[in-house]
Amino acid sequence: MPFKPTDYLPYDFANRRHIGPSPEEMDDMLAVVGASDLDALIDDTLPQSICQKEPLEMGRPLSERELLHRMREVAGKNKLMKSLIGQGYHGTVTPPAIQRNILENPAWYTAYTPYQPEISQGRLEALLNFQTMVSDLTGLEIANASLLDESTACAEAMTMAQRVSKSKAKAFFVDRDCHPQNIAVVQTRAAPLGIEVIVGNPDKMNADEVFGALFQYPGTYGHVRDFTAHIEKLHAAKGIAVVAADPLSLTLLKEPGAMGADIAVGSTQRFGVPMGYGGPHAAYMATKEAHKRAMPGRLVGVSVDAHGNRAYRLSLQTREQHIRREKATSNVCTAQALLAVMASMYAVFHGPKGLKAIAQRIHRKTVRMAEGLENAGFKVDPQSFFDTITVDVGPLQAAVMKSARDEGLNLRQVGEKRVGITLDETTRPETIEAVWRAFGVVKADDDFTPKYRVPENMHRQSDYLTHPIFHMNRAETEMMRYMRRLADRDLALDRAMIPLGSCTMKLNAAAEMMPISWPEFAHMHPFAPVDQAAGYTEMVTDLSDKLCQITGYDAISMQPNSGAQGEYAGLLTIAAYHRARGEGHRNICLIPMSAHGTNPASAQMVGWKVVPVASDDKGDIDLDDFRDKAAKHAENLAGCMITYPSTHGVFEETVHEVCKITHDAGGQVYIDGANMNAMVGLSRPGDLGGDVSHLNLHKTFAIPHGGGGPGMGPIGVKAHLEPHLPGHPETDGTEGPVSAAPYGSASILAISWAYCLLMGGDGLTQATRVAILNANYIAKRLEGAFDVLYKGPTGRVAHECILDTRPFADSAHITVDDIAKRLIDNGFHAPTMSWPVAGTLMIEPTESETKAELDRFIDAMLSIRDEIQAVEDGTSDAENNPLKNAPHTMEDLVRDWDRPYSREQGCFPPGAFRVDKYWPPVNRVDNAYGDRHLVCTCPPMDDYAEAAE
Amino acid sequence: MPFKPTDYLPYDFANRRHIGPSPEEMDDMLAVVGASDLDALIDDTLPQSICQKEPLEMGRPLSERELLHRMREVAGKNKLMKSLIGQGYHGTVTPPAIQRNILENPAWYTAYTPYQPEISQGRLEALLNFQTMVSDLTGLEIANASLLDESTACAEAMTMAQRVSKSKAKAFFVDRDCHPQNIAVVQTRAAPLGIEVIVGNPDKMNADEVFGALFQYPGTYGHVRDFTAHIEKLHAAKGIAVVAADPLSLTLLKEPGAMGADIAVGSTQRFGVPMGYGGPHAAYMATKEAHKRAMPGRLVGVSVDAHGNRAYRLSLQTREQHIRREKATSNVCTAQALLAVMASMYAVFHGPKGLKAIAQRIHRKTVRMAEGLENAGFKVDPQSFFDTITVDVGPLQAAVMKSARDEGLNLRQVGEKRVGITLDETTRPETIEAVWRAFGVVKADDDFTPKYRVPENMHRQSDYLTHPIFHMNRAETEMMRYMRRLADRDLALDRAMIPLGSCTMKLNAAAEMMPISWPEFAHMHPFAPVDQAAGYTEMVTDLSDKLCQITGYDAISMQPNSGAQGEYAGLLTIAAYHRARGEGHRNICLIPMSAHGTNPASAQMVGWKVVPVASDDKGDIDLDDFRDKAAKHAENLAGCMITYPSTHGVFEETVHEVCKITHDAGGQVYIDGANMNAMVGLSRPGDLGGDVSHLNLHKTFAIPHGGGGPGMGPIGVKAHLEPHLPGHPETDGTEGPVSAAPYGSASILAISWAYCLLMGGDGLTQATRVAILNANYIAKRLEGAFDVLYKGPTGRVAHECILDTRPFADSAHITVDDIAKRLIDNGFHAPTMSWPVAGTLMIEPTESETKAELDRFIDAMLSIRDEIQAVEDGTSDAENNPLKNAPHTMEDLVRDWDRPYSREQGCFPPGAFRVDKYWPPVNRVDNAYGDRHLVCTCPPMDDYAEAAE
Repeated sequence: MPFKPTDYLPYDFANRRHIGPSPEEMDDMLAVVGASDLDALIDDTLPQSICQKEPLEMGRPLSERELLHRMREVAGKNKLMKSLIGQGYHGTVTPPAIQRNILENPAWYTAYTPYQPEISQGRLEALLNFQTMVSDLTGLEIANASLLDESTACAEAMTMAQRVSKSKAKAFFVDRDCHPQNIAVVQTRAAPLGIEVIVGNPDKMNADEVFGALFQYPGTYGHVRDFTAHIEKLHAAKGIAVVAADPLSLTLLKEPGAMGADIAVGSTQRFGVPMGYGGPHAAYMATKEAHKRAMPGRLVGVSVDAHGNRAYRLSLQTREQHIRREKATSNVCTAQALLAVMASMYAVFHGPKGLKAIAQRIHRKTVRMAEGLENAGFKVDPQSFFDTITVDVGPLQAAVMKSARDEGLNLRQVGEKRVGITLDETTRPETIEAVWRAFGVVKADDDFTPKYRVPENMHRQSDYLTHPIFHMNRAETEMMRYMRRLADRDLALDRAMIPLGSCTMKLNAAAEMMPISWPEFAHMHPFAPVDQAAGYTEMVTDLSDKLCQITGYDAISMQPNSGAQGEYAGLLTIAAYHRARGEGHRNICLIPMSAHGTNPASAQMVGWKVVPVASDDKGDIDLDDFRDKAAKHAENLAGCMITYPSTHGVFEETVHEVCKITHDAGGQVYIDGANMNAMVGLSRPGDLGGDVSHLNLHKTFAIPHGGGGPGMGPIGVKAHLEPHLPGHPETDGTEGPVSAAPYGSASILAISWAYCLLMGGDGLTQATRVAILNANYIAKRLEGAFDVLYKGPTGRVAHECILDTRPFADSAHITVDDIAKRLIDNGFHAPTMSWPVAGTLMIEPTESETKAELDRFIDAMLSIRDEIQAVEDGTSDAENNPLKNAPHTMEDLVRDWDRPYSREQGCFPPGAFRVDKYWPPVNRVDNAYGDRHLVCTCPPMDDYAEAAE
Repeated sequence: MPFKPTDYLPYDFANRRHIGPSPEEMDDMLAVVGASDLDALIDDTLPQSICQKEPLEMGRPLSERELLHRMREVAGKNKLMKSLIGQGYHGTVTPPAIQRNILENPAWYTAYTPYQPEISQGRLEALLNFQTMVSDLTGLEIANASLLDESTACAEAMTMAQRVSKSKAKAFFVDRDCHPQNIAVVQTRAAPLGIEVIVGNPDKMNADEVFGALFQYPGTYGHVRDFTAHIEKLHAAKGIAVVAADPLSLTLLKEPGAMGADIAVGSTQRFGVPMGYGGPHAAYMATKEAHKRAMPGRLVGVSVDAHGNRAYRLSLQTREQHIRREKATSNVCTAQALLAVMASMYAVFHGPKGLKAIAQRIHRKTVRMAEGLENAGFKVDPQSFFDTITVDVGPLQAAVMKSARDEGLNLRQVGEKRVGITLDETTRPETIEAVWRAFGVVKADDDFTPKYRVPENMHRQSDYLTHPIFHMNRAETEMMRYMRRLADRDLALDRAMIPLGSCTMKLNAAAEMMPISWPEFAHMHPFAPVDQAAGYTEMVTDLSDKLCQITGYDAISMQPNSGAQGEYAGLLTIAAYHRARGEGHRNICLIPMSAHGTNPASAQMVGWKVVPVASDDKGDIDLDDFRDKAAKHAENLAGCMITYPSTHGVFEETVHEVCKITHDAGGQVYIDGANMNAMVGLSRPGDLGGDVSHLNLHKTFAIPHGGGGPGMGPIGVKAHLEPHLPGHPETDGTEGPVSAAPYGSASILAISWAYCLLMGGDGLTQATRVAILNANYIAKRLEGAFDVLYKGPTGRVAHECILDTRPFADSAHITVDDIAKRLIDNGFHAPTMSWPVAGTLMIEPTESETKAELDRFIDAMLSIRDEIQAVEDGTSDAENNPLKNAPHTMEDLVRDWDRPYSREQGCFPPGAFRVDKYWPPVNRVDNAYGDRHLVCTCPPMDDYAEAAE
């Protein structure tokens, strides 16, 4: 036996590829943190009482090759038919240049939400293009940078309408021609807020009894109606008009703004984003200038930097729920940035002429199909349509549906006698002929000449997409370079660690990302018959089983498509449980002061009253206060919302007690899963006493952040809550839906499933352990230079640590902002700023960073501390110093250098790469200026030219 | 009919996506060049006599979506079996991170050959890693940056052995255990050079009668032999020993260097590069320090830049055939850079431990399979093996082969009684069991314990891949960032126009690139039974038909895998034709002075004598001189090699006459297809009088340059030459092969085919016309500032133009090099330098560049002219000026600025992007220093540290 086999396992994804530090590095790090081995560190960090009893058991982890093989098998179980179901989901062509250079490019998909504008100018520009596109198409002055899906956008529009309406009415009118899922999600949202939803015929709407109304345009059955008169009536009664509009149709049809609409919402899915069995894709919302401050979601705006050059950034951030907390009226946090970028690039790629030509083709095809059916004697409704018709087939509905399936087509079942047919960009002549055959029609149109079936008065009169960005040549060479330039302006995970506390910026492996591009996952309609989606079913089922095992829950709902949606869905589930037990009056929710801002906002959304609970001086929940408040509100206690480990990054030992107090008082326990990356394989929220938790699959389970979405926030529940999970009109369940699609953004579940399959139970557990090691290593190495705010009783932190930078405000007038901006010079995205404690930095390295990268970050932080010290000592100028002037740009280097420190010191502090230096494209951005001079669409080109000079 | 349909065709790939200028831009450009419309310009530019009569007819062009649908259909016709054929091609796992971030990333695949080192540091580092890897694994001091395939590497090694050997012998010995295609390609190469090839048993080799010998290691039938004694014998007779070695086996086996080998060659395909039905993948060559100057191909070396910082660049460029011309002994030009980068990243990803573990697994699996067969009574040969065995099955060969195919396996047919089986990284236990079943063996090894079947004395004793780059953690996060950093150092087509004359750097569209990643194209063994490759056959056949129509030839050979190989193959075809007619004595080749350097080198390789023909003062072929020389050599005239349009960028009207003279003298006409981008759809070399041409698919037909390969150089011939095209031992044909695989780098034919399908006949023709417009626009706009050296009689250029920069050497001491380096500051890759005329710049914009990008380039050139003027006028310092100091780096900006011009002028000249500025990572590279101090493997890490300081 001549060869000594190495013990090196080249296909061990977990330990070789996903987890950053090598075994040797871990030994060095353990020595620094003062632990004999990793077991000892974990024993030291996690209270024994919270540790799970059994290790995770998920079978042998797969190699990357095995994974892709398995995923191909599962994908093959999805049967791809032509879905002409419509209902808000359409076949679309993703331009290959956009697929390759955005969707499949880590520079785009690994980026974080653009809170730090200086390192986010590329995606901010793309999102500004998105806003401009939406604003133009809808004919409304201002648009946000995407919402989760069209249905939740409708619900957000309803609550926004309530906020801005001066009507005293308590009801909201919903056009019965809205997509069923839009109606259902609005109803779900309305119920706990005490809003009555009136579904009916707009012509019969009583404007005086509603504060607003929602119309679908074109209607779900195809009608193209002019809502101008209805909106006038509404306005006369101080009501607010919301139009849910298909943006592609708006290239041809009179736009909502021209009808007088106050708010427009919709989905940009058909702008090049695959259906993905429900998502992710970017919904939009646009409104009038007057209502801009009431609009939920993120808004990109234009401001200036320290040199007065133009710079983009998120506007009106004070509207966000993390500031307003329980006064917030929306918990929107994650958006669909990556998909909004794709949709905006689709519009740049095609331009107004291209989009219009695409819409015209679709319309012509629909006319041809309709006339073929009419010529054969079928009754087609409506007479005016864009891309959708319904056909009355009387008792033959089932037969026609089946006949269509035999032709490879999914039609839409409408009522008991009709079928709906919607065409799209991908419809080919053969498909129309197949539709005809399904109806028994052969050779329907030998002499078809293109006609149009939209009345003159419904034609769009105004221009759109007039900005030069939509008028490039759109040659692929030019598009490719534009996308590259934007990507290069941003600092994403593909260039440097992003140590954002609570955001878990871990590796998004290429193997995990590949399957989402496969047609069998990408092109499935969310309402396709379930027997065609066996692959999706297998994936959802197996991932659910794994997540149940990981969390200690009994059932999972995959419907919530963001973490905040998960919170909201979880609380709805609890509320439904109380109602079912005749305790529907329970409406008090205990929430610790340190909670995520989304927690109180979510409680608010289910109609609960938030009772804050104090923290003790260690940052832990003040148990006495908790006990007192639970007792005080026992009668009406709906539950509590806690985060574990705490948002202070500590495994609190009191968690069982907190759960017991809540249960004893008749409440249910919501454990926020944001920090699951510190728990997987070690501790289970279901074991701790939780009744429900959401999981941020885009944090713990490797879905990339996409520059601010997509996310997924499935919830796990104990068995007693399972009957009360969200339902969906297209599937089942007794409760209403929270998202447009039954499984939320289903296609990206493939990423989390792949992650679990690659890691295996041991790998997932080891990842958690190394995440804790990495955080403790940073905390230890920074000891002395910075105070770590909260630690467990043994002096350990969990998977993140909070550095107290407040003292420097006094000692050197250096703020947490100065430090964050200076870190850009050092080559890093800043940690989480001022959360959960104002004036602090929360650092979460995740398990994916190597020791070398951690050391680079630590060196940067230590050098910043030295720079602060120099200010404290008076050896550095109090105002004109590297921290205050940060970040430094090439503009600074090219200009005259009137600084008391050298260019070298300014631009190449420790941590910064020399050759591979990341340069922010702008200096520090003036947020206040931008909010005072709000511009949220693309500025004129001569501004660009000026900025360039 | 309410809507007026736009005439905008959103899916018109040719005019909207591939061709850069918009119709409106073209109008503006035509006004500048002074042509009423594009037809008029083309009429003005192309002599009527050369225009083709009929437009290209290729049916309706496909949209991108239709293309991908068609390609999927065709891919589906390839039947993917497990190929255990071996013979130099193996299943391998491409790490997804490498697939995504290198193979599918335009930053890597659109780059050009790194002739301009300042903008190529990233890929130069990756290629240096490749050289280090090869050098380490083979145990030889120096390795080049890849060759085309293992078989041509063997042939190159033979001619190199002849060059360096001091033996007087004229024969070359070839181990009969070499792969058959290696033997065949060596024989093809040897014949015209008068080298006798002796194929035999190495034990019986007579060292005195040969100047060198080639051994395969392990042998094609699996034998692991120690060639130390044979090599000693060879050395005693002054012979040179070449070992063709599988690099993966060298992680376990005694390396060629340890046996005393002088040269090692082989293929790195199994380092993560898919088989692709034959390629592309990177072959390697390594040799001893003493022979480095005799080594063909490109060699990356380490030098310093103007600040003394380390910088990589191509070493010993004077060896190249474009300098030596007819004295060159190799025509190697294109290499396989992209694939060498992938292979090197595979080694970085796995490291020495990982590679060794992979090799050990393969060996253990092979032992298990062999013992299972032995236990069942089969006779397995050899006893010592790495991954390959043969089994004597007597008369049952056909039965076993079929039985294996029924199991989904391709085995290798060896002689009439044996089958060969080779295992690889992808072999699973099920595959071994399927092999057993094919032999009728069931449950062969209930009690298998791993054993090793390599004798102790054949074990590798030395370390390898000891450099730190191969000892990163190799976490995917770290790898991803490393690949990104390297990519960012380079300037490729995804950031800026690359106006390289004669290189046709056009768009490589994402849709064209996608199919090469599909398993059905990627994982096909080149020697798989042809009935499993119906998709490939359809593609090759249809692409051949299209290329025949485009060129006016009657048949195409897809075998040559580079342009230079195409020339060589074309000349071999002519030579065979002469031989067949009993005129084998014809050996004179007329070549104009302006020809590509590969032309004379190729002629030399087929044993011809090159007779140069003069150019007249307009740069055209001197017809009188041509006539005289043809007459003088009529007896022995083999043919002529001309380029059309000429390398001076002019459509010569004399082309028919040149062909007629040649034919009248009994010669054949080779028309070099390098400039086909000026002809497609307008003129056909076959109509002009050509008998054979090669086509650079990586120029005209959209295959990306990959940073210096892959390429494809198929040849088209008239019918009388068809019987003499290259054959292949695995397929058919009477002539010998020129490449390892029957269809060369077959998988990338998908790119060119996709390009043709997307463009259609009209689109291809329009591309040619716009390429000519773009070149004339540049020539016109630069008129006055620079002299355009050669123009046609009407003052037009073809698809490229030559600017004369020689006057500035006198007027301002500014060289063409200064201008090229200054263009980097302006944000451009330099045009082709000093070719075909020393001291000039040849510019080819291609049709893919928009007017905006052309204008950016023109502005840059004009500002450079102004800078030269300032030197001429004495207002700028003669030595310390922006041109001499170019390119400027961030290092310059950070340092003290002791220049008489501003930082702004230095770093942001016209053309340079402001925010999106490309910064070269090094200042001007000192080529001479690097050649004097030749270092061609990775320098020690502390050098890196020093360079960083």
